[in-house]
Amino acid sequence: MFVAVMGYGTVGSGVVELLYKNHDSIVKKSMQESLELKYILDLRDFPDSPYQDKFIKDFNIILNDPEVKIVVETMGGITFAYDYVKKLLLSGKSVVTSNKELVAEKGYELLCIAKEKNVNFLFEASVGGGIPIIRPITQCLAANEIDEIAGILNGTTNYILTKMITEQASFENALKNAQALGYAEKDPTADVEGDDSCRKICILASLCFGKHVYPKDVHTEGITKISLSDVAYANSWGGVIKLIAAAKRLDNGKITVTVGPAFVQNHSQLANVDDVFNAILVRGDAIGDVVFYGRGAGKMPTASAVVADVIDAAKHTLKKKNFGWDNAEENYVIDYREQTAALYVRGETDDKEGVIKLLNGEIGAVRVLSLEGAPENELAIITNPATEGELRDKIENIPGFTPKSVIRITDY
Amino acid sequence: MFVAVMGYGTVGSGVVELLYKNHDSIVKKSMQESLELKYILDLRDFPDSPYQDKFIKDFNIILNDPEVKIVVETMGGITFAYDYVKKLLLSGKSVVTSNKELVAEKGYELLCIAKEKNVNFLFEASVGGGIPIIRPITQCLAANEIDEIAGILNGTTNYILTKMITEQASFENALKNAQALGYAEKDPTADVEGDDSCRKICILASLCFGKHVYPKDVHTEGITKISLSDVAYANSWGGVIKLIAAAKRLDNGKITVTVGPAFVQNHSQLANVDDVFNAILVRGDAIGDVVFYGRGAGKMPTASAVVADVIDAAKHTLKKKNFGWDNAEENYVIDYREQTAALYVRGETDDKEGVIKLLNGEIGAVRVLSLEGAPENELAIITNPATEGELRDKIENIPGFTPKSVIRITDY
Repeated sequence: MFVAVMGYGTVGSGVVELLYKNHDSIVKKSMQESLELKYILDLRDFPDSPYQDKFIKDFNIILNDPEVKIVVETMGGITFAYDYVKKLLLSGKSVVTSNKELVAEKGYELLCIAKEKNVNFLFEASVGGGIPIIRPITQCLAANEIDEIAGILNGTTNYILTKMITEQASFENALKNAQALGYAEKDPTADVEGDDSCRKICILASLCFGKHVYPKDVHTEGITKISLSDVAYANSWGGVIKLIAAAKRLDNGKITVTVGPAFVQNHSQLANVDDVFNAILVRGDAIGDVVFYGRGAGKMPTASAVVADVIDAAKHTLKKKNFGWDNAEENYVIDYREQTAALYVRGETDDKEGVIKLLNGEIGAVRVLSLEGAPENELAIITNPATEGELRDKIENIPGFTPKSVIRITDY
Repeated sequence: MFVAVMGYGTVGSGVVELLYKNHDSIVKKSMQESLELKYILDLRDFPDSPYQDKFIKDFNIILNDPEVKIVVETMGGITFAYDYVKKLLLSGKSVVTSNKELVAEKGYELLCIAKEKNVNFLFEASVGGGIPIIRPITQCLAANEIDEIAGILNGTTNYILTKMITEQASFENALKNAQALGYAEKDPTADVEGDDSCRKICILASLCFGKHVYPKDVHTEGITKISLSDVAYANSWGGVIKLIAAAKRLDNGKITVTVGPAFVQNHSQLANVDDVFNAILVRGDAIGDVVFYGRGAGKMPTASAVVADVIDAAKHTLKKKNFGWDNAEENYVIDYREQTAALYVRGETDDKEGVIKLLNGEIGAVRVLSLEGAPENELAIITNPATEGELRDKIENIPGFTPKSVIRITDY
């Protein structure tokens, strides 16, 4: 059996490396007589690559080669990836991708085509890098109704937050540090504004709850506004700030999906996830909480997830895996303002006692956080859980109080 | 398709409950038209059970019913379970078990029969309760060469150690507490002496490294000798004591497998695993460290893993899963004394300075741990890594030093 790789960037080159390095055990596990790389598609030249003879620049060579049964897409982005992957599936080839944007935006359509053509469209590497998560959800936790899924899905922001927490680095300095180490891109927007986490939670929510969730329907907030005083207040509360992407099933059949900074208690399994590591918590009705932890990005971890999918696709050549979700539905994801949440609020006031009294009256007893060396006019509180939108409105309208930072509190 | 459950204890009754509770989604996921419980085998009477009409006492009814394609074995123990499971597999039925003793002692033979008969023998629930671990190792991490696997595999001992660490309870009191809560059995030997962890690491080692590992070949030590001063020294070292079951591949093709208390650094993902929770760390060549965390025991978590296997067996009725390992091999597991380890040693001496000098001369520079309020004649040290047996012998033979406690140091 022959395989092609499209996109020889970080992940793609890792896939090629792994296909050669662990070749024999990969062939054995795929239950095929052979599993060989035939083409590497990339527009760039790699004159020093040992796989010189594999490089091609014309996509149609792959599309029209009946020997190629499985194609790895590690190009990223949507435009070309979508066009190519669609054509490949339609032509009866299985596709394995690490492209979270592609799956989050076009997953439902591509899964439908794969089903129709009886081929595999697999994307374990699109969430959590090398951490096994897609397959455990679909197979191992199959006996559970999944109630909630939440995680630290972006290594860049987690690295920045870790530096802010452990070294009191400012956001700006921590970001520069991450860029210097290659953990953050020159334009870090997709990471620090939460878009990357958003795509990943869309994929997980689609898988866990059965209907496609699009990024545009998810309220997404990044970490650019987190200050060191928020970090210090989280510590005085007994926890840390993490960028949490979460989805939850509601009793009415709808779901909530949000991405944003959140207070996580110190004893939580998500609190200790530091640096570029990721962790995903799945809450099932039978199993309770299960957490998957590991490297959420990086060349070889992600490549290993891609190659595991290649092996799986090879094993299931004749019989596709039953795998997918239904189309999106209007108003299926509720407005974040309608969800129930407890909030941390830091603000300014010249009359602390008066504002606390007003808050207690409007939203019920709040917990006041104390912090040594905090400005005289700073007030930080924790609310009880309530409808998020109403809570935010009421707090904004407390006379004499100017909120500067509002962060959700998690219960895991 | 029909299913039978053998053994209506904690896990078996959970399986029955789950098969009814999540019936529709289970049928859908199993890709069968139906998936119904036909028999429950148990010698006891359950007059108040709502599943009254399902109970039978004669194993042969299941064995001889061609409608029953999948049998769940949750009886535990070896004698009957081995006889029944063997007959079922030979008769062409798939078997799903949560019985770690059965798999650790008879796994190779039963897997061979299953292969020959083209049926499934699945045992996700035998390790880590509801935590997905068997399937992730065989499928998701398939592109990796696994170098090492280590975990907290027994909830009872982890609960006891947690109480010793967080509440300074003595081993005896913590055990009584665990028994009162139902976490430990009246006769806690299998848990506290490490046998349960040993069976589980045998299964994991067989799966990761490809040859059957028998419990008798594994050096196993429990937690009965751990004192509160060891707990305090671990804290002063910067970590905690956990009961760690670990297996590691060596360069010469052999492996080490051990079960015993170990020092784990505070920043390790295994350090924060408290109470009855379990966690398993897998170290792969491509992915690095991945950790799976969750409830390692209990009715519904374990039942959910069993039912996930039932779903998988149903999906693969026609084509068995490629899954298993080779026969055991003489001297494949090396003697623990030949492995490399760093040790914590606590002992008594009337000449601390002299003993430290002798130790430094015999085994290289040791790190001396200090502890407020420790007895005048107590000395606790950390060694460098060396061949474990030689290290132990040299320390035992230091004149004027009487070792009281020796515990391994982990590097994860």
